Amino acid sequence: MNFYHLSELPEPEVQRLVVRAAALGHGKPAANLGTSALGLFFLAPSLRTSASFQRAAAQLQMQLIQLNGGSVWGLETRDGITMDGEAAEHVKEAAAVLGTYVDVLAVRAFPTRKSLQEDLGDPVMKAFMQHCSVPVINMESTRWHPCQALADRMTLDQIGVPQRGKMVLTWAWHPKPLPHAVPNSTLTMAAQRGMDVVLLHPPGFHLHPDVIQEAEFLAHTNGGNLTVTHDRQTALQNADVVYAKSWGSLDHWTDAAADSQLRQPFRDWCVTPDWLHPKTKFMHCLPVRRNVVVSDAVLDGPASVVVQQAANRLPAQTAILESLLSPVLQK
Amino acid sequence: MNFYHLSELPEPEVQRLVVRAAALGHGKPAANLGTSALGLFFLAPSLRTSASFQRAAAQLQMQLIQLNGGSVWGLETRDGITMDGEAAEHVKEAAAVLGTYVDVLAVRAFPTRKSLQEDLGDPVMKAFMQHCSVPVINMESTRWHPCQALADRMTLDQIGVPQRGKMVLTWAWHPKPLPHAVPNSTLTMAAQRGMDVVLLHPPGFHLHPDVIQEAEFLAHTNGGNLTVTHDRQTALQNADVVYAKSWGSLDHWTDAAADSQLRQPFRDWCVTPDWLHPKTKFMHCLPVRRNVVVSDAVLDGPASVVVQQAANRLPAQTAILESLLSPVLQK
Amino acid sequence: MNFYHLSELPEPEVQRLVVRAAALGHGKPAANLGTSALGLFFLAPSLRTSASFQRAAAQLQMQLIQLNGGSVWGLETRDGITMDGEAAEHVKEAAAVLGTYVDVLAVRAFPTRKSLQEDLGDPVMKAFMQHCSVPVINMESTRWHPCQALADRMTLDQIGVPQRGKMVLTWAWHPKPLPHAVPNSTLTMAAQRGMDVVLLHPPGFHLHPDVIQEAEFLAHTNGGNLTVTHDRQTALQNADVVYAKSWGSLDHWTDAAADSQLRQPFRDWCVTPDWLHPKTKFMHCLPVRRNVVVSDAVLDGPASVVVQQAANRLPAQTAILESLLSPVLQK
Repeated sequence: MNFYHLSELPEPEVQRLVVRAAALGHGKPAANLGTSALGLFFLAPSLRTSASFQRAAAQLQMQLIQLNGGSVWGLETRDGITMDGEAAEHVKEAAAVLGTYVDVLAVRAFPTRKSLQEDLGDPVMKAFMQHCSVPVINMESTRWHPCQALADRMTLDQIGVPQRGKMVLTWAWHPKPLPHAVPNSTLTMAAQRGMDVVLLHPPGFHLHPDVIQEAEFLAHTNGGNLTVTHDRQTALQNADVVYAKSWGSLDHWTDAAADSQLRQPFRDWCVTPDWLHPKTKFMHCLPVRRNVVVSDAVLDGPASVVVQQAANRLPAQTAILESLLSPVLQK
Repeated sequence: MNFYHLSELPEPEVQRLVVRAAALGHGKPAANLGTSALGLFFLAPSLRTSASFQRAAAQLQMQLIQLNGGSVWGLETRDGITMDGEAAEHVKEAAAVLGTYVDVLAVRAFPTRKSLQEDLGDPVMKAFMQHCSVPVINMESTRWHPCQALADRMTLDQIGVPQRGKMVLTWAWHPKPLPHAVPNSTLTMAAQRGMDVVLLHPPGFHLHPDVIQEAEFLAHTNGGNLTVTHDRQTALQNADVVYAKSWGSLDHWTDAAADSQLRQPFRDWCVTPDWLHPKTKFMHCLPVRRNVVVSDAVLDGPASVVVQQAANRLPAQTAILESLLSPVLQK
Repeated sequence: MNFYHLSELPEPEVQRLVVRAAALGHGKPAANLGTSALGLFFLAPSLRTSASFQRAAAQLQMQLIQLNGGSVWGLETRDGITMDGEAAEHVKEAAAVLGTYVDVLAVRAFPTRKSLQEDLGDPVMKAFMQHCSVPVINMESTRWHPCQALADRMTLDQIGVPQRGKMVLTWAWHPKPLPHAVPNSTLTMAAQRGMDVVLLHPPGFHLHPDVIQEAEFLAHTNGGNLTVTHDRQTALQNADVVYAKSWGSLDHWTDAAADSQLRQPFRDWCVTPDWLHPKTKFMHCLPVRRNVVVSDAVLDGPASVVVQQAANRLPAQTAILESLLSPVLQK
C-alpha cells in the first residue's frame, strides 16, 4: 500500500487521517514505530517537506535514512533503454535496493519537462512504487502532492471553513513555469471535501482534463461543485478561501520561452488585499514569491494562514506514517 | 532568547557556560533533552560546526532536523521586495515555518559581499531571530561566530593562559577575502576575558570601528587592554597566544580584485616559528591553509592547539543547547 | 585498528565476519553501541553505502554524524604543500578533528585521476587512517572497497557457490573510465575464499600487477587458483558466477580520450544471456548501466543476484561496526 494521491483514498479514510492528524497536532502522542525505518529520497529541493518528515520520524522514534539527488547517482527511469548517457543507475535497482534497507520510502521527484507525455506518466514515482517492496510515500511527484493536500484539508477544518464553503484556487503570475502537482492535489482535495470549488486562471493555463474530470467526479460524489473560469471578479465573490498557486502552461510544457510569452500579460495576477473579502482566508503551499504571487499586505495580514498550513505538514505526515506502518491505530 | 553574540552575555553567564562546557568535556553527562528538536540550517559550508552540533544533539538525546542551502529554495531577506529574481522563498516564511518544527534553530549564513552596509546588518541571522518563534543559535553569521568564541575561551583556560595574559590576534595572508565573524568574535571574547589583547594587521585590514569600540569597552570593563598595531615585532613580544586569522578589507568589500591587490605585498604574513616565543601557543579556528596562513612547522609543533580548539566545540555547543533549552541546569 | 582492505584480515577473521553478518541478516539482534558515534564522510556519490550505513548505525543504536563533500571545505592531502589553490582545509586537521567527535569514522574518496602514482597511494584514505585517532572504515577508496567485498562473499555463500567454485570477474564496456576499487576487492576476496578465479578483460585493461600478485598469493594460500585471460569463451566455461564490472585502463589513467579510444572496439563486452550457463549466477556491485554493462534479460532474469548483494551490505557493515567497536562479540 502506497500513499500516492490523497483522492485515491475513500472519503472515510481521508477523514480518519484528518482526525488523527488533528489529534497529533493537539499533542496526542505519536505511535512508537521504533524498529521501523523511514527512507527520505529527495530528487528535488525541499524545506518544509524534509524538515517535517525528519521531525515526524523522530516523534515516531523511527530510524531515519536520508538521501538526496545531489549525492547519489543520476537515475534512469525508462524501460529497455541503453544507458550510455548521464544516468548511472536505473530506478529498478535503486528502488529494489532501498526497499531492502527501509520499511517505508518517501520520494520527491519533479517533472523534467523533456516531454509532456512522459511527465504525465509520473515516471519516477510510478517506478519506485512498482519496484520497491515497501510502501512508497509521494513527497511531490509530477502529478500530485498528497502530503500537502492532507495538511491543507486539516487547515480548512481548523480555520472553520464549512464543508460546503467556497474555495477559489487561483493561478498567479511567476517568473517560471511551475509544476502542476499542488494545483492538481488542491483541486481534488477541495472537491472531495464537498466544497464549492472555483478554478480561476487566465486563458492558456488550464489544468489537465483528467484532473478536471476527477475533481468533477469527486465534487459530484461528495455534494460539492466545480466551476472553471477566467473571470476573476465573479470567481472571488463570497470566497471563504483564496488558494493561490502558479503553474506552467500544458500547451508549452517543453518550451519555457513560449510559456513566458503566454503569461507576460498576466503579471497583475498577484493576490492583493482587494481580491479578498473581510472573511476570506488566504492559502498557499509555500515557498511563495512575495509581491509576485501575493502581496506583503496579504501575507503579513490576518487573512493569511500559510504558516499554519506548513505547520500542519508535521501532524499530517505523522498520521500518514502511522497509517502505513501501524494501520490498526487509525481504525 | 537567542545565542547570537557571546559578548552580549554578561560575564558571569559566559563563565557559567565555560564551567559547564569544561565539565561536559570531562565526561559529565549531558542533560536529556529527548523531547526537544534541534534544527541545523547551513547556508554555507561546514565541517566542525556541522559534525559537532550533530554529536551534541545525539549526546543530549535531541531530535535532529538538518537542512542545507544546496537542497532548499533560494532565500530572500530584504523587506518589501518584488521576488521575481532567483530567490523562491522569503526568510520570513522559512523562519516562521521552521519554528513550528523545532525547539531551537541553529543557522549559518555568510556575507554575500554585494554591499558592505547590507552585510554589516547581518540580514539573514537577524531575520531568523526576528521571524522564528524559537531560540536561534548563530553558527556563524556575517558579524559573529559565538560558538567558536566560547570554545576558544574554554581552550584558553585549559592551556593555562592567565586571565590577564597576552593574546595577539593577527591577520594572515590568504588568497581570498574572508569574512570578519571570527576575528570580531575572537577580539571581543579575549577583551571580555580581561586579557591584554593586541590586534595586529597590515594597513588597510582594520576591523570595523564598532567592533573595536565594543572590544575596548569590554576590555575596560573587565580589567583588560586593547592595542591595535601594524608593528609585528613589538606586537609579538611576550605573547601567551598568537591567534591567526585572515580577513578581507572593509575598504574593498565588494571588489575582490582591489582587495587582492591591497594584500599582495603581505604574503609574508604567514605565522612561522620565529613569530613565537617558546611559551607562545598558536590558535586558529580552522580550516587553515597550511604554509599560507601558518607554516607546517608551527601547526605540527607543540605550540599548536588548533585541534583542541575544535574538539572544544562539542562541549561548548552542548552547554549552549542546555542553556537555551534547560536553563535551570546552568544555574 | 582500521577496516581498509578485506584481505588484510586473516582468513578466520573474515569467516567470523561472514558468519556474524549472516546471523544479523537472519534477524539476530545487533549489539547496542548506543554511546558510540559513527561518522560518515562522503567525498563521492553514494546510494547503497550511505543508506545501508545509516540503517546499520540505527540498528546498533549508534549516534550518527554525517558529512559530505558538497557541504564541507575542499580537502588537501599532499604533505608540505603551500595551500594557495582551491583546497581550504588539509586532511591532517580534518581527520584529527573528526576523530575527536566520533568513535569510528567511515570515509569514501574516489581517485582524482590527476596522477596514477598519486592515486595508487590511496592518499585520502591513508591520510585519514594516519591522522585520525579512531578506527577508520574504508567506504571505497582509490584501491579497495572492502564493505562490498564482505557483502559479496556473504552472497556467494548464500547462493550456494562452493568454496572452490569458479568465478569469472569480467571487464565490461562503459562510457567512462571507472575506478579499480571494486575489481581489486572482488579479485582478492574470491582468491582468499579459495575459488577458481578467472580475470577476463580485453587487452589494455589489466588490473595493477600488485593486485594480481596479492590475489595469486591469496589463492595459493587458500587452495584456490587465479587465471588471467582475454579469451572470453574459454573463461566463461562452467562458471558458477560471472561478476561484471567496468574499469579504466591503467595505461591512460589521466587521459580519458585515450582510454575512450582504447575501449571503443569492446562495446560488445556487455553481459548477455549467452554468456551464462543455466547454473551461472550474475553479480555486480551496482550502480549498473543497463544494456551497456549487462542486458535487461540478464538483470531481470533468475541469474541475477545484484539486489541480494546490495541487501547484504547492511548486515555486513553492521558486523564490521560491531567488530571495531565491540570486538568481543565477534569472538
